[in-house]
Amino acid sequence: MIDIHYSAEVRAAKDADQPIVALESTIITHGMPYPQNIEVAAQVEQDIRDSGAVPATMAVINGTLHVGLEADDLKALGQAQGVAKLSRADMAACLATGGTGATTVAATMIAAQYAGIEVFATGGIGGVHQGAETSFDISADLHELAQTPVTVVAAGAKAILDLAKTLEVLETLGVPVIAFGQDEFPAFWSARSPLAAPLRMDSAEDIAKAHATRRALGLPGGQLIANPIPAEDQIPSDELAPIIASAQADADAHRITGKGVTPYLLQRIYEQTKGRSLTANIALVRNNARLAAGIARALSGQSD
Amino acid sequence: MIDIHYSAEVRAAKDADQPIVALESTIITHGMPYPQNIEVAAQVEQDIRDSGAVPATMAVINGTLHVGLEADDLKALGQAQGVAKLSRADMAACLATGGTGATTVAATMIAAQYAGIEVFATGGIGGVHQGAETSFDISADLHELAQTPVTVVAAGAKAILDLAKTLEVLETLGVPVIAFGQDEFPAFWSARSPLAAPLRMDSAEDIAKAHATRRALGLPGGQLIANPIPAEDQIPSDELAPIIASAQADADAHRITGKGVTPYLLQRIYEQTKGRSLTANIALVRNNARLAAGIARALSGQSD
Amino acid sequence: MIDIHYSAEVRAAKDADQPIVALESTIITHGMPYPQNIEVAAQVEQDIRDSGAVPATMAVINGTLHVGLEADDLKALGQAQGVAKLSRADMAACLATGGTGATTVAATMIAAQYAGIEVFATGGIGGVHQGAETSFDISADLHELAQTPVTVVAAGAKAILDLAKTLEVLETLGVPVIAFGQDEFPAFWSARSPLAAPLRMDSAEDIAKAHATRRALGLPGGQLIANPIPAEDQIPSDELAPIIASAQADADAHRITGKGVTPYLLQRIYEQTKGRSLTANIALVRNNARLAAGIARALSGQSD
Ligand SMILES: [Mn+2]
Ligand SMILES: [Mn+2]
Ligand SMILES: [Mn+2]
Repeated sequence: MIDIHYSAEVRAAKDADQPIVALESTIITHGMPYPQNIEVAAQVEQDIRDSGAVPATMAVINGTLHVGLEADDLKALGQAQGVAKLSRADMAACLATGGTGATTVAATMIAAQYAGIEVFATGGIGGVHQGAETSFDISADLHELAQTPVTVVAAGAKAILDLAKTLEVLETLGVPVIAFGQDEFPAFWSARSPLAAPLRMDSAEDIAKAHATRRALGLPGGQLIANPIPAEDQIPSDELAPIIASAQADADAHRITGKGVTPYLLQRIYEQTKGRSLTANIALVRNNARLAAGIARALSGQSD
Repeated sequence: MIDIHYSAEVRAAKDADQPIVALESTIITHGMPYPQNIEVAAQVEQDIRDSGAVPATMAVINGTLHVGLEADDLKALGQAQGVAKLSRADMAACLATGGTGATTVAATMIAAQYAGIEVFATGGIGGVHQGAETSFDISADLHELAQTPVTVVAAGAKAILDLAKTLEVLETLGVPVIAFGQDEFPAFWSARSPLAAPLRMDSAEDIAKAHATRRALGLPGGQLIANPIPAEDQIPSDELAPIIASAQADADAHRITGKGVTPYLLQRIYEQTKGRSLTANIALVRNNARLAAGIARALSGQSD
Repeated sequence: MIDIHYSAEVRAAKDADQPIVALESTIITHGMPYPQNIEVAAQVEQDIRDSGAVPATMAVINGTLHVGLEADDLKALGQAQGVAKLSRADMAACLATGGTGATTVAATMIAAQYAGIEVFATGGIGGVHQGAETSFDISADLHELAQTPVTVVAAGAKAILDLAKTLEVLETLGVPVIAFGQDEFPAFWSARSPLAAPLRMDSAEDIAKAHATRRALGLPGGQLIANPIPAEDQIPSDELAPIIASAQADADAHRITGKGVTPYLLQRIYEQTKGRSLTANIALVRNNARLAAGIARALSGQSD
């Protein structure tokens, strides 16, 4: 067992068996500049509280796993430089060597399971990168969903990925992919996409029941809830597709590869959409936080 | 724990510690028209009884996992329309939402393990699809074999798949692939193939011993027993290969993709072989049922 | 549970809670001719003793798992013909049928875990083969590292593999890849490579701490410690790269495929380097044995 540092709010929620929603922290350290990053993080936490659950933002700080960040921890993390982006492969090393790191989807799932939290809200999961048939670049998030029993609410996978291949890998790995309230698999900044979702559910209660059934069956993994961005906040896919394609072409032309690709593409899309991609990103994370709170409440038997 | 609905016969067999063989149900709902589908299912069940074991056909009916189907359940399933084809990704959701679904290889393995059944007979497993190097279309059956401790008796993988790549993935995932009584990896409708099997065994007892040793070692997965179709029932591979190739070319020409490919190919092969593919399919499933019964008996200490 | 045959030395070490280092045996049966193979094996075992730990060479002999080989076992194995090369897929079958086999990286990890040994020294792990984007040929060692909690000390992956893709797959599978004392991922016969290592550690103590933290977190897999070959023993990568490329071109020209590729390439590289590849191989295995002993000591609380 490792030591967990709980925030006072999460500690109290655990003691009282209240519903809790895990949150990742790379959105704070790698997603936006200070102080916008901590303002958005505080807003998302408040959305969860307003929806009847307790937020637990995860991070590793000086070698200690934090489950729930106090305001001063959040502020320090939001201003820190060179913070590691932790995934399954490097989380234990960071803990062992006293490092500080923000948690990706995979690491947040590990932390959530370790702390007994079953629902997690994020923006979009990682997946199969464009060109993975020759680069083999596939996010660890997919295998994490296959093995760690946490329900992850996201607006799909980040739309700069190869979404069709991402769905194939999730099927191969046996991960339930459940679109919320629609038949299509949403495409992050857009609610619509040409891809059919493997499963559809229309209530937090059904999602909670499916989660509990998986646990009862002894299946080890989680569920991906693909929650479409609200229509009023989306960038329509016919507008977005050429922007993504042109950003990808730029990345290829400048020979950007490996870990450099994602930040490069996101920055280009931010510029090309005159900042609307970031506005949409904030809207979808908040939307996911509210649904995740509903699922956590349903799992605790606190349905509406 | 979820509730299991056992048939009377399987319940009695479990109480008496008799050998049991699991059977899948997609062959009933998606493999043949009514009433041939339930006649063949009943025949395969009888083959298992004649070989000294008890059949347990798996299905999810109205949200309940059935282990062993009574005659009226079988008949109803055989006539039902729009039944889901369940795999690891959607089995829990079907149970949770009160749905009805037939079990693929992956879902049958999960159900078998859950019910304490260690041997399962089917036709052919899923695997790596033709063109998977760009489509990433790989069946969940392969990862299921890597993690669920059930010995699966099949006539190899369905011959419309890329068999060489299927063997590579099974090796990567650490799945024992054991040809029964020959050195080659059989090719579903044909006993012969140009592919060497990684392992060969010549008796049900050896297969049972290997299964038990895997369990004793604590290894989590199952074994694939590649049981060649009886010579008198096969479609020789030099006759079959051009038929499969032409069916695949047709599918490409008509831009059939995704989940539509397998049913399309099987239908074309059925037409081109004037129905012999279905006759061969029935012969090989019955052959697999008999071997599976022998393995289940050997595992129960009831060897000949 | 299966029976383990312990050597007297390993048995005593277990009873006294002394640090133990696992060793594989394919280097004996498939790596060098007799008697050089057993001389080198004895030397590597002695290196481990000189570094304060006890060596446990793994093999399956006549259906029994040996953990630690007595001198006569080692000699018999070193002279045996047609010994199987065991991986996860065939280890249980070999045990069940009374066979004899040498353990690859994957099988050695399984044996080590089964015997309660947490550290293992080898030459280089298997990985993604050149051309795997169309052949799908990927070693089972990678998935073994993802699931079996053993720290493996190697000079990286064998340099005839596609090292960039091997790193991608390890990241996807969540395996920590820790370069020892440098920032680059070493390339087996060369300490240098153009690839950055995902993690770097500079002491056996840190590696042991990360191992223990992984265990405490409940993560199932191991760690790959990429330990560069000592500078004085390496074949510089600019000298080696064209030799590997020409060997690969020869293999392609002679249409060598599948399991034949690796031995063919190693033999060509041996010839082209006038035997220096083998000398380097021995130096790097000894170097890995010493570091592994240090890690095992640190894990036992016996740090310097
Ligand atoms: Mn990546
Ligand atoms: Mn598929
Ligand atoms: Mn291979």
